[in-house]
Amino acid sequence: MTTQTNNNVFYAQSGGVTAVINASACGVIETARKQQVLGKVLAGRNGIIGALREELIDTSLESDADIAALRHTPAGAFGSCRYKLKGLDQNRAEYERLIEVFKAHNIGYFFYNGGGDSQDTANKVAQFSQQMQFPITCIGIPKTVDNDLPITDTCPGFGSVAKYVAVSIREAGLDVASMSESSTKVFVMEVMGRHAGWIAGAAGLAAEQEGDAPHIIVFPEIAFDKAAFLAKVSDCVKKYGYCAIVVSEGAHYADGTFLADAGSRDAFGHVQLGGVAPTLAGMVKQELGYKYHWAVSDYLQRAARHIASRTDVEQAYAMGKAAVEFALAGKNAVMPTVVRESTNPYRWSVGEALLSDVANKEKLMPRDFITADGFGITAAAREYFAPLILGEDYPPYANGLPQYARLKKILVPQKLAPWKV
Amino acid sequence: MTTQTNNNVFYAQSGGVTAVINASACGVIETARKQQVLGKVLAGRNGIIGALREELIDTSLESDADIAALRHTPAGAFGSCRYKLKGLDQNRAEYERLIEVFKAHNIGYFFYNGGGDSQDTANKVAQFSQQMQFPITCIGIPKTVDNDLPITDTCPGFGSVAKYVAVSIREAGLDVASMSESSTKVFVMEVMGRHAGWIAGAAGLAAEQEGDAPHIIVFPEIAFDKAAFLAKVSDCVKKYGYCAIVVSEGAHYADGTFLADAGSRDAFGHVQLGGVAPTLAGMVKQELGYKYHWAVSDYLQRAARHIASRTDVEQAYAMGKAAVEFALAGKNAVMPTVVRESTNPYRWSVGEALLSDVANKEKLMPRDFITADGFGITAAAREYFAPLILGEDYPPYANGLPQYARLKKILVPQKLAPWKV
Repeated sequence: MTTQTNNNVFYAQSGGVTAVINASACGVIETARKQQVLGKVLAGRNGIIGALREELIDTSLESDADIAALRHTPAGAFGSCRYKLKGLDQNRAEYERLIEVFKAHNIGYFFYNGGGDSQDTANKVAQFSQQMQFPITCIGIPKTVDNDLPITDTCPGFGSVAKYVAVSIREAGLDVASMSESSTKVFVMEVMGRHAGWIAGAAGLAAEQEGDAPHIIVFPEIAFDKAAFLAKVSDCVKKYGYCAIVVSEGAHYADGTFLADAGSRDAFGHVQLGGVAPTLAGMVKQELGYKYHWAVSDYLQRAARHIASRTDVEQAYAMGKAAVEFALAGKNAVMPTVVRESTNPYRWSVGEALLSDVANKEKLMPRDFITADGFGITAAAREYFAPLILGEDYPPYANGLPQYARLKKILVPQKLAPWKV
Repeated sequence: MTTQTNNNVFYAQSGGVTAVINASACGVIETARKQQVLGKVLAGRNGIIGALREELIDTSLESDADIAALRHTPAGAFGSCRYKLKGLDQNRAEYERLIEVFKAHNIGYFFYNGGGDSQDTANKVAQFSQQMQFPITCIGIPKTVDNDLPITDTCPGFGSVAKYVAVSIREAGLDVASMSESSTKVFVMEVMGRHAGWIAGAAGLAAEQEGDAPHIIVFPEIAFDKAAFLAKVSDCVKKYGYCAIVVSEGAHYADGTFLADAGSRDAFGHVQLGGVAPTLAGMVKQELGYKYHWAVSDYLQRAARHIASRTDVEQAYAMGKAAVEFALAGKNAVMPTVVRESTNPYRWSVGEALLSDVANKEKLMPRDFITADGFGITAAAREYFAPLILGEDYPPYANGLPQYARLKKILVPQKLAPWKV
């Protein structure tokens, strides 16, 4: 087997990080270390920004043990970013810079570990590199807690958040039930997911018997109906003595106004959401008079590697491994996917999607996953969600705390003029 | 051995519940089942309210397996309450009712599992029952996530919250570090603890090396200095690229105003706190312009049995067991305590305190546990906290979710006229 000249791999993490994105990185690097065709895996320091700035972390300088530890380390070990490359016609210079950096470091492969926006970028780089006569093999690696990528059955990162929110509302539900006779009657837990109710829906797995928490789920797919919501809260309190509510950060009124719009926008132009839990809790207090508590887990939910889903970890690793295998097989502009082979027993395999089919598409919860009244999940939803949270995969502990990888993150020497992002 | 007439035990859970208060219940009931002197353990439905209403759960009807499962079940399995008996002179009728119920059900022992308020109540019941010529043996069982009881080295419930907050800020800190180059630079996590900074302080265990999260802890023991706080946030972002902050719900200005005062009061007259995290985050955004995220774990932190401290679980169980042993030894108006025998290696034993010495006293963090600048913990604090989060004690899982006890909670037949609480 001969090695080609530009056989180094550029790997970058993109967008919001997850409990298992490093497991994908681990899958990439461990698989790459076992073969002779691909060269070094160079990781972007803070994602694609690292490529533009020529800040490339030499993963070959990390020990096997540290790379193995990535499998149980949450968040983005090499740094991620919210930085979207503009369209080719708007900012051709950025694409040229990318190719220049890739050329300078003999990079012929670009693995982009992110959501829909990132798969779009990877697809553009694949096209542009052809035009530039420096063809780059671009493989997407799916990642998003929002679970909103099309084609793939699920997105690595989602199963672990799903497990976290289901465990959390089960535990908090027991707490509220204990307190409800004389104190807190309503508890509201806000979860992530943006425009997709997948995370909120998965919390519904916690309710296995009549009366179990959560009693109400507020989805972004269903326009918020205040009167119906308050009536349901009141019914729950009368029936069970308390009411545990899960609300998606993306919950909104029929006119599109978010229940909580923090006002700011991120680099992708998305509204920064947060604070719908206190908004709903205040509404309950004002209209029904119930004592309330509320929680906003925010980053805690997506970083919670301590309660990760083993299924999710395995799939995240498999996606990273498949990216290398796809590259070795000569594939380009594709992304590995999770294919559900069967639900009972749960079996899955690795599939393949074109980046062009994945890019910038948002997969919302199907309406038949949500109960007729809009506040719960159906049997079909349970069947979909249940396997994704299966299994535990505890990180190692020392001194009572999980031990997460601390990489050296040594940059390869720079060869080009500085570039300002 | 002869059994006395009034040999039944009344056990009640009081105040805010914890991840391990049921482990104390388990310790009581399992220990009581192994001896012949004490009769049935009757648990108050929703705490002391259950005694007043004569709603007594017959724990003898629960299986050994279900009682064993209490050890790994969070929150109050029999229900708790925020209901404080007034002083004897203010509401003698309530104390008389208690004695009447105890008499009707041959209850000679009262085990009250709660914080300082509850130990005060237990002490009053002990005194009053003597006056009433129906002496009740009253044993307190310590419980509070706030860790603010005097005499005992720690309070069951605290070690598990401590572990939860330290794990959470470690994980969220990695997340923020990943995102900080282009997005979130400041993360604020609000924790419980009321007037005592124990929980906030314990989060500091997550920082093991220079630059680790949390970078700033805002304690209720230190008057909040906005200028000093903002300067420290700015320094952290310059030095580490981001800043992870833990803030106690009880944080306040020099004049005593809470940073976040939700306005309402609970049954004990305490201010209901919540929302200091968004307050601080907004302050940072307004004054320094940094993009932020914030989290409020609220009940999640104290119900998080999935990440409980094994040390805490063992101590909670031991306190319940000791209550039975104290009763068998003829002790009265006392509470078992955790005595620290040594820190390295950690060794502890069960001690004993008079209820009168425990009642209504609040133990704050010593000043020498907090760094000179008021924003961190000292080596002395680390030495104190470190053993309390040692060990994991995972609950059993099925279908990806922790399996918590579901008790039958059958009430003993009522013998008295109804009583309105």
